[in-house]
Amino acid sequence: MKASIPTATVSRLPVYLRSLSSVPAGRVTCSSSELAAIAGVNSAQVRKDLSFLGTSGVRGVGYGINDLRSTIAQALGLTREYSVMIVGAGNLGRALANYPGFSDWGFEIVAVLDRSPAKFGREVAGLRVEMVSNLEQIVATRDVTIGIVATPASAAQEVASRLEQAGIRSILNFAPTVLQLGDGVHVRRVNLSTELQILTFHMQEDARREQPDRRLAAYAGSSDS
Amino acid sequence: MKASIPTATVSRLPVYLRSLSSVPAGRVTCSSSELAAIAGVNSAQVRKDLSFLGTSGVRGVGYGINDLRSTIAQALGLTREYSVMIVGAGNLGRALANYPGFSDWGFEIVAVLDRSPAKFGREVAGLRVEMVSNLEQIVATRDVTIGIVATPASAAQEVASRLEQAGIRSILNFAPTVLQLGDGVHVRRVNLSTELQILTFHMQEDARREQPDRRLAAYAGSSDS
Repeated sequence: MKASIPTATVSRLPVYLRSLSSVPAGRVTCSSSELAAIAGVNSAQVRKDLSFLGTSGVRGVGYGINDLRSTIAQALGLTREYSVMIVGAGNLGRALANYPGFSDWGFEIVAVLDRSPAKFGREVAGLRVEMVSNLEQIVATRDVTIGIVATPASAAQEVASRLEQAGIRSILNFAPTVLQLGDGVHVRRVNLSTELQILTFHMQEDARREQPDRRLAAYAGSSDS
Repeated sequence: MKASIPTATVSRLPVYLRSLSSVPAGRVTCSSSELAAIAGVNSAQVRKDLSFLGTSGVRGVGYGINDLRSTIAQALGLTREYSVMIVGAGNLGRALANYPGFSDWGFEIVAVLDRSPAKFGREVAGLRVEMVSNLEQIVATRDVTIGIVATPASAAQEVASRLEQAGIRSILNFAPTVLQLGDGVHVRRVNLSTELQILTFHMQEDARREQPDRRLAAYAGSSDS
């Protein structure tokens, strides 16, 4: 059975939810075109996306802001709190532990783990770094439901498999590797180089537009590179 | 004039490129289904995506690994180096400066800026934190082409506008805000809460499947929340 809301729509719902916070205070409704302008998409897309939640604005009036906020939050499962474990206490793990946006949406970091004895007991975002050997015990006793993998690539698969074995069904992976896990586990991979590579693609496209004669050669994977 | 490769394909090209690195050493070809398994998509999608680059595998043999790597790298503009500036030297800015994946793909961090006098001169990833007031001068003298915004939301728009004014056409934004910039500027926004919210959506969906009778009520934005 598949989710009834398209994946692309799901990925835009958090954007709409944040956009609602940008509407000037005192307003009670918001049009799809206002929401579209803040979120950076077009208004037809906004209306279509929100229709999947069973909600449609009133013509000439728009959406009730409070209703829409609660509908989106409910669809996204943001009406409860989630306990999150970060594995890896390097620069990235520490940055994530300190990321202010998580707690705003009910994500509470309850543990930061590392395998390096040199890091045990160090304070990170009000927590003490704990040993990765205690992973299973911590997941069970602190009701952890989301795991964040912020380890080097070489350790990521082992950590993710242990999270899966411990019962975690949602993993956010920052390691530059594709995790092999069971179908029951939802994985989102964040790769920061990918984002930069998408930017360079567009820079490349811009350059090609200025030199259209080089276009074909560049795409054909010519042998002079 | 629009880019000739669909956006969704562009976003998968970096994944294929990395997947090629996972093919066992000594192999010279790779099938679309192998690539699909490593990249986590289906093989028809791989063939379709790669056809946009003017490259198609040989039936029963697959793609030449070296050719494919160079074709993708060329399409993504990865055949040169890019100088990158990070604005914001908090936890996130420091984590990004130390992120090992950037240099592997030709992204060199050449400056880390902050507006807090307390941070000036501190060492981050072999660089000294510099004053944000020198932004324009640093962009010009170090040939910076990509800017990373790792400031709090309140400072992001001002920093991004200054990057745009200084001639930057590619911005990676980590601040939880939608930047208003000219059409000539490519912006990728990375929001880590968004990734977690997409995970909670799927957790929510799983729960609904187990309790199908609650499905409608959850989507209708009922008033009891």
